[in-house]
Amino acid sequence: MSWRDGYIAVDWGTTNRRAYALDGSRNLIDSFEDELGLLAVPSGGFEAAAADIRERLGDRPMLLAGMVGSNRGWREAPYAAAPAGARDLAEAIAWIEPGRTGIVPGVSQRGAAGADVMRGEEVQVLGAVAAGLVPADCVICHPGTHAKWILMEAGRIASFRTMMTGEVFSLLSKHSILADQLEGDGAADDAFRAGVAEALAGRELLSALFGIRARHLLGEEVGDPASYASGLLVGSDVRAGLGLYPDRPLALIGRPELCELYRAAMAEAGREAPEVDGAEAFVAGMNMLTQML
Amino acid sequence: MSWRDGYIAVDWGTTNRRAYALDGSRNLIDSFEDELGLLAVPSGGFEAAAADIRERLGDRPMLLAGMVGSNRGWREAPYAAAPAGARDLAEAIAWIEPGRTGIVPGVSQRGAAGADVMRGEEVQVLGAVAAGLVPADCVICHPGTHAKWILMEAGRIASFRTMMTGEVFSLLSKHSILADQLEGDGAADDAFRAGVAEALAGRELLSALFGIRARHLLGEEVGDPASYASGLLVGSDVRAGLGLYPDRPLALIGRPELCELYRAAMAEAGREAPEVDGAEAFVAGMNMLTQML
Repeated sequence: MSWRDGYIAVDWGTTNRRAYALDGSRNLIDSFEDELGLLAVPSGGFEAAAADIRERLGDRPMLLAGMVGSNRGWREAPYAAAPAGARDLAEAIAWIEPGRTGIVPGVSQRGAAGADVMRGEEVQVLGAVAAGLVPADCVICHPGTHAKWILMEAGRIASFRTMMTGEVFSLLSKHSILADQLEGDGAADDAFRAGVAEALAGRELLSALFGIRARHLLGEEVGDPASYASGLLVGSDVRAGLGLYPDRPLALIGRPELCELYRAAMAEAGREAPEVDGAEAFVAGMNMLTQML
Repeated sequence: MSWRDGYIAVDWGTTNRRAYALDGSRNLIDSFEDELGLLAVPSGGFEAAAADIRERLGDRPMLLAGMVGSNRGWREAPYAAAPAGARDLAEAIAWIEPGRTGIVPGVSQRGAAGADVMRGEEVQVLGAVAAGLVPADCVICHPGTHAKWILMEAGRIASFRTMMTGEVFSLLSKHSILADQLEGDGAADDAFRAGVAEALAGRELLSALFGIRARHLLGEEVGDPASYASGLLVGSDVRAGLGLYPDRPLALIGRPELCELYRAAMAEAGREAPEVDGAEAFVAGMNMLTQML
């Protein structure tokens, strides 16, 4: 069975995995998502975890991307160096079994642009360009645990910058003195916009965050503290991101609920960005890559 | 026995406590520090924990300050509202037993200056002014888990701002993806100064922090990552703090090892600040308060 007859695409991350079965015409036949991310796979357990995917989606060639290619994953797929396009990724696939099971590399950046890495987002952004969902020259914001701002030039990843936005929110929610007040993920409400506005105005994050605690102690809370904290973080992220590559068309790619928060923050900054579902972009990217095999 | 004949001063925080015995001339007779902070005192155990202090330092009147007066402590001592001076604190002491055992209140701030609170630092800064260790009009930086920038006017606490600097460093060291690289507290070395310089230049913290991870993955680490992360955080803190109350004389009060980091960061910003040991300032503050009883 060759890639032309259909294949399985897997976005395998730290905490979950999403698998898609595509037919020869690249129509989606079947898919599933579960929580068998890297952290849940026992040592030496990737062969079995991949066999399980084939049992559920059929015995087809399989292309994987994401943290599964990191040094904590199945096999390390060395990074392709930015600037990088689809052909660079296809040529650098790390084959578990040639022609049958391979892992797409992430992208790295060195030098004056600043050391940085991505794994998984590269498939989505290159796929979104290939499918015509975003322009070949634009800045893509990809929200997440480690949010990315990616400069696309002529359809290639030119440079990028990662922000620990989602991870810092999670640290604050789970382990900080604010943990009692930060319940849930917040929403794009008035409290969120207030946080965004403070961040865009340059309010220091370390100080604004403590204000959540102080207002609680003084009985001055207004709105959902989780929304406000999220607004501070996303606002800081958007402020820095918009400053990196000014005057370029913007796009948002990622999980829809995260894109909604970033869209609201960009609106506060007077900017708009078309949104692309990360899952759709991922499948488009894998389709493009398998056409090169 | 009255306060004039000597007393015990206790700085009782979340994770440890420091107790000092003073004679009638306010000479230090004895002191100890242990880890019986709030978190280590069982429910209903403060009476016994205070009796233990008197067993070790003598049966004298006792004045306490710090988180022991919070809603998680022995008894809540309602905040004195800023602007606040020594007399405001003395008049608002929460008495466990009148004339014998009392807790100094913290200071709160509401309104346009921003909701904020402190417990413990107020004794130190008012004591440092009373003892002539810092000017009556100045800006005091007090490093710590929740670092404070305090504007002193005519020897009173006029306004202040808290930064979650120390807590965020701790969260990153213990719970983040950087935990493996952040060992120890860092030092005022070249890596620290590099972090400070980036922060002073306005580099976004959320992005600079991820660079620690990326450089590690790419084998580009230079210097101690803990020092660099500390430099980013302290530099962000100092940048914001210096901007709050510009053109005022500065002072640093706190634990000497933390003051050293802040002194190094201020030097990068072209500023100098005399340093006062927090323990010395605390005793000076308690001496002043007991003279009002």
